[in-house]
Amino acid sequence: MDIKTLQDLLDTRRFSEIRNQLSDMQEADIAELLEDLRIRESLLVFRLLPKEIAAEVFSFLDVDRQSKLSSLVSDQELIELMDELNFDDKIDLIEEVPANVVKRILQHSNDTERTLINQFLNYPDDSAGSLMTIEFVGLKKEMTVSKAMATIRQTGVDKETIYTSYVTGHKRTLEGIISLKDLVLSDTEAIIGDIMETDVIFVNTHDDQEYIAEVFKKYDFLSLPVVDNENRLVGIITIDDIVDVIEEETTEDFQRMAAIEPTEIDYLEASTTVLAKKRLPWLVILMFSAYLTEMVMNGNNHLIVQFALAIYTPMLMSTGGNAGAQSATLVIRSITLGDIKFKDFFQVLWKEIRVGLMVGATLGVLNCIRIFITNGDIYRAVMVGLTLICTTTFAAIIGGTLPIVAKKLKLDPAIMASPLITTIVDVTTLLIFFRIATLILA
Amino acid sequence: MDIKTLQDLLDTRRFSEIRNQLSDMQEADIAELLEDLRIRESLLVFRLLPKEIAAEVFSFLDVDRQSKLSSLVSDQELIELMDELNFDDKIDLIEEVPANVVKRILQHSNDTERTLINQFLNYPDDSAGSLMTIEFVGLKKEMTVSKAMATIRQTGVDKETIYTSYVTGHKRTLEGIISLKDLVLSDTEAIIGDIMETDVIFVNTHDDQEYIAEVFKKYDFLSLPVVDNENRLVGIITIDDIVDVIEEETTEDFQRMAAIEPTEIDYLEASTTVLAKKRLPWLVILMFSAYLTEMVMNGNNHLIVQFALAIYTPMLMSTGGNAGAQSATLVIRSITLGDIKFKDFFQVLWKEIRVGLMVGATLGVLNCIRIFITNGDIYRAVMVGLTLICTTTFAAIIGGTLPIVAKKLKLDPAIMASPLITTIVDVTTLLIFFRIATLILA
Repeated sequence: MDIKTLQDLLDTRRFSEIRNQLSDMQEADIAELLEDLRIRESLLVFRLLPKEIAAEVFSFLDVDRQSKLSSLVSDQELIELMDELNFDDKIDLIEEVPANVVKRILQHSNDTERTLINQFLNYPDDSAGSLMTIEFVGLKKEMTVSKAMATIRQTGVDKETIYTSYVTGHKRTLEGIISLKDLVLSDTEAIIGDIMETDVIFVNTHDDQEYIAEVFKKYDFLSLPVVDNENRLVGIITIDDIVDVIEEETTEDFQRMAAIEPTEIDYLEASTTVLAKKRLPWLVILMFSAYLTEMVMNGNNHLIVQFALAIYTPMLMSTGGNAGAQSATLVIRSITLGDIKFKDFFQVLWKEIRVGLMVGATLGVLNCIRIFITNGDIYRAVMVGLTLICTTTFAAIIGGTLPIVAKKLKLDPAIMASPLITTIVDVTTLLIFFRIATLILA
Repeated sequence: MDIKTLQDLLDTRRFSEIRNQLSDMQEADIAELLEDLRIRESLLVFRLLPKEIAAEVFSFLDVDRQSKLSSLVSDQELIELMDELNFDDKIDLIEEVPANVVKRILQHSNDTERTLINQFLNYPDDSAGSLMTIEFVGLKKEMTVSKAMATIRQTGVDKETIYTSYVTGHKRTLEGIISLKDLVLSDTEAIIGDIMETDVIFVNTHDDQEYIAEVFKKYDFLSLPVVDNENRLVGIITIDDIVDVIEEETTEDFQRMAAIEPTEIDYLEASTTVLAKKRLPWLVILMFSAYLTEMVMNGNNHLIVQFALAIYTPMLMSTGGNAGAQSATLVIRSITLGDIKFKDFFQVLWKEIRVGLMVGATLGVLNCIRIFITNGDIYRAVMVGLTLICTTTFAAIIGGTLPIVAKKLKLDPAIMASPLITTIVDVTTLLIFFRIATLILA
């Protein structure tokens, strides 16, 4: 069923047909439909669903829609929905809903759960603590494989994953892990302690999500244990959450590289004021930095007037800016993927010098020919061509090296992207251009 | 062990110590060390490893390093390494190695495998066929759970995943799937056909990898079946490959948005010529498009000369370009994540008009004040301020809407990123500026 059909059925109030058609669909698809409806209508459709499907669908909704629905449902419905959520998703939702809904949720939780919720709410955003869930299978190393399988059968239905089990010892310290694959393929009488993996990769509750994503990518894990400062196992992180983290970090990089303050808000949902606030700071900084170009232009006004030089400045600046943006983007992305490190600084520098010269020479010659053909003045043609070579090479060097320097200074390399590079390149381009013009024309 | 220690041990030829220290490490970490060595040294270290570890480490190396090592090892070593690789990784490697190594690999494969390899090599790059592997667990719907578990125990060790099994019928048609979780939690006498999931989400061998990544993200799958045009199950795709696809597609987007021809090559490994070739086409196109700015400047040279207007043009153009880049980036990213569709065109347009006006007004007023203070000429101040409001709003509209139009025209929205937007905005900024200047100053 598509959204148009659903809207038609809603408008003509054919509710039983909606119920029938939706019951055959995947929960994720139903969730997608609900997100496209107005909130009151989505509540109506949501209540048409059989209870067990409804709870599943709810877990697939984005947090914003979950939060809005939570404010509208009855206490009984709220309890059922919260029961179905994994603990990490529950925490995400609690962070989003209005205070009165938080209160309702906490009222219906028992003491242990309330304590846990409060503890999890305190983990910093973007930390392992804020990503992990508590629903994992715990085993003891004295168990046999058949006892372990029995434990999994008893407790597995409520776990986020049963494909890795975690073996803990005294005071919940993490002693090993064992995959369900190994359990299934091992002799039923084998002892967990003998067959478990003891050389376990784990993270700490305060580790940053970007680092955690790297761990997942490097080892091809499906899940990863999280321990506290006393090495006690407190939760696990699963691969589906990591996919979201990668998307989130990428979005942040894109935003920083376009001189936008990173934001997690949905573009269509965000208010004009919020969007403007995220965009203004860098625009203002860059605009005032461009005052330097005004000074350079002013200082060379006699040249501009005498030889009508201003006409070439937009093309020169934009070409330099584009070349710099290319270098910056290639290098920033390689830093993010771990392919370029600080030790590669001089290799990058040398590469950018050569690429810059090669690209600049091509552009310079092409433009030299173009100006000579259209204008007939060889001095002008050479002047613009030479400027292009110098400015493109300079832009390549700046674009390629500044992100590495930023990384070394513990700044996000992404801020050294096109807008900032462009501003630096603009000023330099003008300086180079007027210098060359003075040499050739004067 | 870090790379420096390893290099020291190599230089002093303490091979048994290398062997001992490496044996305690994770295979993925050893692979990372090998990638940082010169190729001959990495072969030496590789041969120091116990056989079973060596094969595992090999599977963690990037394809480039795998390919280089393959050219150097003996036939016997090559056979052992290929045996350890999953089929999808084997195909990736065969696509990379020199022809003589391909020949050696095919010589040591049997007829069935050779046919399969040839078939897989024919799937288009970036298609489901090129991502999938053939190592999945196949079940029949008549089986009981205990028979199914026995099958998994027998065949599971060589499979890419055993956490989902695929139930096929007549002529290998896909009839259902069942997770190991469901198998473990079900009664051992239950019949697979009764408990399997029949409403299976699958993809076709020719589906694009970007679409496949979306399917994984939407449904939170760990693996996904791939069928051919006759609905026969031919392979499966696993989540670890999807993480790579997401990274790859993101890198492509970054490159396109910086006017670079998308390339998968490693920055540090790529030759100067290759990098220059990827960067030149768009630079040339954009440079020649900037000829328009020359025409506009030329046509207004009398104004420039009479009122020294050129000094403001760099700042105006770069501010407009930055504002446009911000809008383009926000919208392109939202399109990629599926948050903005063509039906949202007018909502985006209306939002960008308001944001553009709000941002533009702020920038305009700030600059107006700045120029009035430094220059004292209220006419100039107003002229620049007004231009900023118009140009920022225009840039926001263009940046916000062109990517949506591109998507509708089946182009990659990412090409409508800052470089192209900047060029359009540059010309328009100049036109607006000289028009306003004529009105105010003339």
